[in-house]
Amino acid sequence: MAGNTYGQLFAVTTFGESHGEALGVVIDGCPANLEIDLNFIQQELNRRKPGQSLITTQRKEDESFELLSGVFNGKTTGAPICMMVRNTDQRSKDYETLKEVYRPSHADFTYQMKYGIRDYRGGGRASARETAARVLAGAVAKLYLKQQGIQIQAYVQQVGLVSLAIPYEQLDLTQVESNVVRCPDEPTANRMIKLIEQVGQDGDSVGGAIACVINGAMAGLGEPVFDKLHAEMAKAMLSINACKGFEIGSGFNAAQMLGSEHNDAIERVGNQVRTTSNNSGGIQGGISNGETIYFRCAFKPVSTIRKPQQTINQEGDEVVLAASGRHDPCVVPRAVPIVEAMAALVMMDFYLRNQALQQH
Amino acid sequence: MAGNTYGQLFAVTTFGESHGEALGVVIDGCPANLEIDLNFIQQELNRRKPGQSLITTQRKEDESFELLSGVFNGKTTGAPICMMVRNTDQRSKDYETLKEVYRPSHADFTYQMKYGIRDYRGGGRASARETAARVLAGAVAKLYLKQQGIQIQAYVQQVGLVSLAIPYEQLDLTQVESNVVRCPDEPTANRMIKLIEQVGQDGDSVGGAIACVINGAMAGLGEPVFDKLHAEMAKAMLSINACKGFEIGSGFNAAQMLGSEHNDAIERVGNQVRTTSNNSGGIQGGISNGETIYFRCAFKPVSTIRKPQQTINQEGDEVVLAASGRHDPCVVPRAVPIVEAMAALVMMDFYLRNQALQQH
Amino acid sequence: MAGNTYGQLFAVTTFGESHGEALGVVIDGCPANLEIDLNFIQQELNRRKPGQSLITTQRKEDESFELLSGVFNGKTTGAPICMMVRNTDQRSKDYETLKEVYRPSHADFTYQMKYGIRDYRGGGRASARETAARVLAGAVAKLYLKQQGIQIQAYVQQVGLVSLAIPYEQLDLTQVESNVVRCPDEPTANRMIKLIEQVGQDGDSVGGAIACVINGAMAGLGEPVFDKLHAEMAKAMLSINACKGFEIGSGFNAAQMLGSEHNDAIERVGNQVRTTSNNSGGIQGGISNGETIYFRCAFKPVSTIRKPQQTINQEGDEVVLAASGRHDPCVVPRAVPIVEAMAALVMMDFYLRNQALQQH
Amino acid sequence: MAGNTYGQLFAVTTFGESHGEALGVVIDGCPANLEIDLNFIQQELNRRKPGQSLITTQRKEDESFELLSGVFNGKTTGAPICMMVRNTDQRSKDYETLKEVYRPSHADFTYQMKYGIRDYRGGGRASARETAARVLAGAVAKLYLKQQGIQIQAYVQQVGLVSLAIPYEQLDLTQVESNVVRCPDEPTANRMIKLIEQVGQDGDSVGGAIACVINGAMAGLGEPVFDKLHAEMAKAMLSINACKGFEIGSGFNAAQMLGSEHNDAIERVGNQVRTTSNNSGGIQGGISNGETIYFRCAFKPVSTIRKPQQTINQEGDEVVLAASGRHDPCVVPRAVPIVEAMAALVMMDFYLRNQALQQH
Repeated sequence: MAGNTYGQLFAVTTFGESHGEALGVVIDGCPANLEIDLNFIQQELNRRKPGQSLITTQRKEDESFELLSGVFNGKTTGAPICMMVRNTDQRSKDYETLKEVYRPSHADFTYQMKYGIRDYRGGGRASARETAARVLAGAVAKLYLKQQGIQIQAYVQQVGLVSLAIPYEQLDLTQVESNVVRCPDEPTANRMIKLIEQVGQDGDSVGGAIACVINGAMAGLGEPVFDKLHAEMAKAMLSINACKGFEIGSGFNAAQMLGSEHNDAIERVGNQVRTTSNNSGGIQGGISNGETIYFRCAFKPVSTIRKPQQTINQEGDEVVLAASGRHDPCVVPRAVPIVEAMAALVMMDFYLRNQALQQH
Repeated sequence: MAGNTYGQLFAVTTFGESHGEALGVVIDGCPANLEIDLNFIQQELNRRKPGQSLITTQRKEDESFELLSGVFNGKTTGAPICMMVRNTDQRSKDYETLKEVYRPSHADFTYQMKYGIRDYRGGGRASARETAARVLAGAVAKLYLKQQGIQIQAYVQQVGLVSLAIPYEQLDLTQVESNVVRCPDEPTANRMIKLIEQVGQDGDSVGGAIACVINGAMAGLGEPVFDKLHAEMAKAMLSINACKGFEIGSGFNAAQMLGSEHNDAIERVGNQVRTTSNNSGGIQGGISNGETIYFRCAFKPVSTIRKPQQTINQEGDEVVLAASGRHDPCVVPRAVPIVEAMAALVMMDFYLRNQALQQH
Repeated sequence: MAGNTYGQLFAVTTFGESHGEALGVVIDGCPANLEIDLNFIQQELNRRKPGQSLITTQRKEDESFELLSGVFNGKTTGAPICMMVRNTDQRSKDYETLKEVYRPSHADFTYQMKYGIRDYRGGGRASARETAARVLAGAVAKLYLKQQGIQIQAYVQQVGLVSLAIPYEQLDLTQVESNVVRCPDEPTANRMIKLIEQVGQDGDSVGGAIACVINGAMAGLGEPVFDKLHAEMAKAMLSINACKGFEIGSGFNAAQMLGSEHNDAIERVGNQVRTTSNNSGGIQGGISNGETIYFRCAFKPVSTIRKPQQTINQEGDEVVLAASGRHDPCVVPRAVPIVEAMAALVMMDFYLRNQALQQH
Repeated sequence: MAGNTYGQLFAVTTFGESHGEALGVVIDGCPANLEIDLNFIQQELNRRKPGQSLITTQRKEDESFELLSGVFNGKTTGAPICMMVRNTDQRSKDYETLKEVYRPSHADFTYQMKYGIRDYRGGGRASARETAARVLAGAVAKLYLKQQGIQIQAYVQQVGLVSLAIPYEQLDLTQVESNVVRCPDEPTANRMIKLIEQVGQDGDSVGGAIACVINGAMAGLGEPVFDKLHAEMAKAMLSINACKGFEIGSGFNAAQMLGSEHNDAIERVGNQVRTTSNNSGGIQGGISNGETIYFRCAFKPVSTIRKPQQTINQEGDEVVLAASGRHDPCVVPRAVPIVEAMAALVMMDFYLRNQALQQH
């Protein structure tokens, strides 16, 4: 495969460029007889949509999707599911100026080197617009996982130097969608919003971090030794545009801890085996242990900024670039549904992979 | 696949348990006519071996390997390469006491839940001994990559609270093997060693971090959108026992940076396109840009400690566990060749994947 | 994967049902910078189209396709290529009568058993209409292969008891498209056409066989031991609706031959190594040897016939079924472009797989 | 993958050359808790062994295997299973004379072209000895399938012009092992044996055909549209050395049949849905329908014969080759367990793939 398919059993292939005809996704391997809630899928897509608030880009993307196959009388048939979004607001001419310029920290240069050709309109295939297709597939996975009692919720945990110190267990995650920055703690959310507004006014951008919490996963998901649950999760997260780091449970903090501090003691609570702490982040030996799965990922500041930057063009001449138009000063809030979607694809695939090898 | 194969074109399958007959690896997809330097492979294997110094476990593992197939007259033939290490120091009876106990933060419980059966001898398949097979495969990949000018070097960057602040560009990486802790800066190395010795005397263990530097990689490696170079690298690293986090280039620091700080300006140096900084860690849009590839990963403290810990046994009774015997107080130095091996597998696979789609 | 993707490097995923919104294909792994000749692709699609002549079904399928992604300024970019055909002549109500009936030798019963649900409109996913998507992908592969000097030509070699005895070397394959039955020998073609007309008037159907000839393939394609070139070719052919058998070179005749008759002696012709006969069908040990690749595949008579047949419905009641409407009395002529398309996908994938592991 | 792995979930990778150190197999994806009957596996291996009778080659291969991993206390653990056979009777010097010669209809030339290097000892990787590893894996699959009620039995149906006309339903398949030629009808078996003896005395070889019957498979196995059950079966069979053709059910006969003859009428027998005939060979639309799965495959005569043959050497000089030593005049009887093994791998993989997507 050339990198556009994720998953072994719930195999998701996305296609499309930022300013091409359409972008979409084919899911091969969705179990039959799953009820497809079109409203829920649309709603997930809307969460990713630009122009949702003043802190996000105002490009109007038509994000209504079309279901092309794999569903009959409201249920999946086991056939491949194709969903598609037409590109309508394709002001390609806006991008003619970028035709020959390699934007710093974008994929312009590397795509040109790898493929010897580049669809420069809006970043082409490298545009974050591609993630809309992932959100569509993730929504289907979520519908299935919900039936199995698995719930996925991400939230913005950090924007620049504004960081939410409260651990996930103490947060009310139903509040994530209550503000535009998708941080469940309102005071922190307000500080994040202020920061983003300031950065936007400066023509700059700022990074951040997203935490993700998965509840209800049974013990047994993950396929060691290479396809450990957190290893695949790391891959899935780092495949998202601008993601720079991933940590499971204690993560980088583990590097400075002692074993006696870090080990999660095991106890019996009623009929259940539980751990008294969760530095493992719900995964041990690459397999879920039935506790909450918890991970965090870092996002760099958006590369496109209005401030002038030094770069070169395809001819190798040095030029100064200053982006015009409005761009997201902080992509992190909009990445929340993408993180959830990718997490759902990972969980879904491991659910099916685990099921394949069980005795029934 | 059930998780024991890594790579699409350079496909590496490991087999074997800590205390079974043997452990080994099959490589399918090694290009023909590669000269196989058996001494180099053995040397790589020795770097991972326990009992190398006072700061590592004294278990004597017979780490001499046997080459079973795929090489004829010293060269690869294109057929699968199988390499194997016999297990000789299998004091399985040492582990009879652990037969019924779930060790905290080990894979005992999760393997039992997933498979309904568990080879409890020395951790069975979940043991870090499995990584010896990865080192064998990684050594073959290194031999090939060296021919293409690609060099991989990892080092210990952190042990507990002792951290090496000097950036990789300013280190002399030829010094990594000059001390037992594999930190290229001697004063830091000495502090790390002291810490590990202290922790070992306390019957405890300590975590750490490894940095990895890859030089000589051409622009163009990596397969977006899902199989981005750093996404696969993250998966590969988190598939290593005890690894808890991964970051590429600026990593988690990126979360608190501004775009104007973070973007790597592009300039022309002679005939080459270069970036003036390397927050990208050598990868942009999921594809190598020709700069040094740089990443870091976090390791938790070893779970097996002599200090008493609360847990339960298979019957669900609460028990107190205190490991006997010697164990690594810090696994991080021995993980250096494993990090390099997995990095080599990733680079090798992407090298071949890229080559498949080029015009020749 | 759930079976809707073919190929490892040139990975082709089809989607869509006979009477759904659309059917289409995503190609992941097409090399960049390939010029896409839209007319050629449309022409290939037209070759498969029903209603081409009196001997094929009169259903009017709108077979004009739309290119959605992966091509920029007339050339492939390395991004996934999605092509789609809308379904327009979907007289679904024609099929309401079949809603509850399992048609003999169709996939109705097996789909119901496997998936527990079935899109009964026109056979749903099991309809041969799905092969239109394969022809689209095959056309792209053909464009690439043509650049490498590889040409693929299939023809109808048998219809019922009318069989073309002339070996492929003595046929003028430029004549294949000169008649509606796609048999390059006109007298035989005429007898075939008469037979099909007769069978059609009887409300019956008839089987046949297709031969395929591939010229210009270099030695070295195929990946033993499992992915032998003819093994993948067999799979590709038997994945086509109604295909019942495959043979390479001497095929089933080999069963009655002696080694001294069957072996292809090797000689030197100028600078080339050639065989004096071609019982191998151009493949030895699973790898092409530079000779013409030649294989043959058998097709059963179409299952849908006007003659009454005994069957049962979903309730298990025995019913008698007699199809109304017009159906192909012989699917074989229309299967010619499908055979070529699948052969092109196989050759394309092996071309890239071989290239991946060569020294360049 | 480079072609040495078969199966998506029950993934079988073989390694080793005819005259290398060892040959073996790794199975990744065997369900845990399967009891491993070592005697049964050894017995299967013995069925393939050369030197079983006067009609097979007298090379003494040490076919006792070693189990290296994946089994604990007699049961599978879910970890990869590695099994290995050491090569002991490696009279490599016998092959020095073949070092530079391309044997007609062998893989010598094509391996040299593809890989630029060739292990010429006994055919190296292209030797049928590799199939011993497949038989080991197939035996494990058979153990699992037996638990599910699935039984696989192949038999020799044709040798040269001696063909068994009795259909499979009327044969007593328990008699297959009662004679050296593995034909369940004794009079036919005797004629086959005589023919093989005659051919052997002439220094020649002869082809044949194997039929395979699978009973007890539930409806629902197979993954359309590409991974149809009979399509994968065709690939699996044609991946066996010397196999030249495959047909399912009516096979090539279907080409001359009418739909009204060929369709399998459906009836209800008690609670079961059955077909009144089985031209489908137990598979419709690529999915098993619960009837007996039946297919046939053709094998060419062994290429190595004592009769003189024209060929060239690596320098391109024309030479005459006459093999010395004893070789199988007919490989078909020994291919029976290999056909069964490959059939078992196919059924096993589809069993798991089907299970993955069911509701449990």
